[in-house]
Amino acid sequence: MKITVLGTGGGARAHIARLAGLGHEVHVGTRDPKVTLARTGPDPMGTPPFKDFLAQHPGIQLHTFGEAAAASDGLVINGIDGHNAVAALSAIADPLAGKTLADYAVPYIYNPDIERPWPTPWGVNPILDPCDSDSLGEQIQRALPHTKVVKAFVTQEQETVTDPKSIGGEHTMFIAGDDDAAKQQVTDLLKTYGWDDVLDLGPLVAARGMEMYAHMHLAIGLALGFGTRFGIKVVR
Amino acid sequence: MKITVLGTGGGARAHIARLAGLGHEVHVGTRDPKVTLARTGPDPMGTPPFKDFLAQHPGIQLHTFGEAAAASDGLVINGIDGHNAVAALSAIADPLAGKTLADYAVPYIYNPDIERPWPTPWGVNPILDPCDSDSLGEQIQRALPHTKVVKAFVTQEQETVTDPKSIGGEHTMFIAGDDDAAKQQVTDLLKTYGWDDVLDLGPLVAARGMEMYAHMHLAIGLALGFGTRFGIKVVR
Repeated sequence: MKITVLGTGGGARAHIARLAGLGHEVHVGTRDPKVTLARTGPDPMGTPPFKDFLAQHPGIQLHTFGEAAAASDGLVINGIDGHNAVAALSAIADPLAGKTLADYAVPYIYNPDIERPWPTPWGVNPILDPCDSDSLGEQIQRALPHTKVVKAFVTQEQETVTDPKSIGGEHTMFIAGDDDAAKQQVTDLLKTYGWDDVLDLGPLVAARGMEMYAHMHLAIGLALGFGTRFGIKVVR
Repeated sequence: MKITVLGTGGGARAHIARLAGLGHEVHVGTRDPKVTLARTGPDPMGTPPFKDFLAQHPGIQLHTFGEAAAASDGLVINGIDGHNAVAALSAIADPLAGKTLADYAVPYIYNPDIERPWPTPWGVNPILDPCDSDSLGEQIQRALPHTKVVKAFVTQEQETVTDPKSIGGEHTMFIAGDDDAAKQQVTDLLKTYGWDDVLDLGPLVAARGMEMYAHMHLAIGLALGFGTRFGIKVVR
């Protein structure tokens, strides 16, 4: 399939590499390909330059967001950070129309002016906006009424999402969305990633809980030791 | 041990019955024992009258909140609903001083005037207050500076908390708090309930994530079918 990944960060790269390994034609979208390719140092998250990643993964095509969205034959993965996602996606509503958008963004706001206690090495508590009475997934769906938004992949690191068997035991992937066929499309992709337990949480409004799980995910990660890969299994 | 449970709802009853079964002297607190004992019909959650429960569990002592808190020799479980917890607990700060308070309340606000889509049979989305930048656990700790608050039991139904082996496989209990000895006290109790995997998420600020998991817990419960018992296991 021709699958598009929007974004070039660490999470997006996990999908790009895995999709290419599975034999898909992978199209990658970035704000400005020239700027992305010109970077020679690591990004603020410590991720190496995308140019180096491309050199290790030949055959992957880098485009603008809009060109990349147009190149997909049905499935697009959103790896644009939560803070910028609605604006960036709204600008490419046309090429995204009719397609399925699998969204794993967390609407974190990093405000260095807010000093809070927080059990992180960073000392600053990322807050979520929207939160509780709305979700980023729903905001994106409202901004793109002709796209089928599926919230997915948001409760694990993307390295774990794309290689679920890399941790010691079966765990659960959660999805939510208002279109059953789109959810099936994402579920089919997840099966090829190696997922056996995909739990459909229902309509897209369930994205609220999935995004709000971010704080607990972070706390679990810190409790286990930074960098430890983990997932959660619904035991029933 | 002399252990106190504040509250007489379904969750509190699960602890009361389990603690009595383990041989503890159980003291139960309610706002007004006479009113509690006078009830003859089910409460708004469909729970039968407490009088009937007491008849089935002889030896349990019902008091006012303050008397019950005073009767504990060190451990108190808060089963007062989230909306009323800070006010009710502040009023009994003296008898709670020096004790460990294991708190599982979720700060739900049920506002029937707020109509939202929500994947529940109730049609109304409970919202959380506080949320994201504060938690009920922290509010209680600030209101009761001489009490050691441990957030615990909040990510499962209390029937599952008190009988973790009732579902099909090992799952994880999360705790958070600022006092290590108090967390050990709660962990020791959990071991007697049957828990093998208790994960300390660190300081009480981690209660934010634990409380915010409520929406996902609800969505998972609805996806599995209302009434299905489940837990989550951190797979690592």
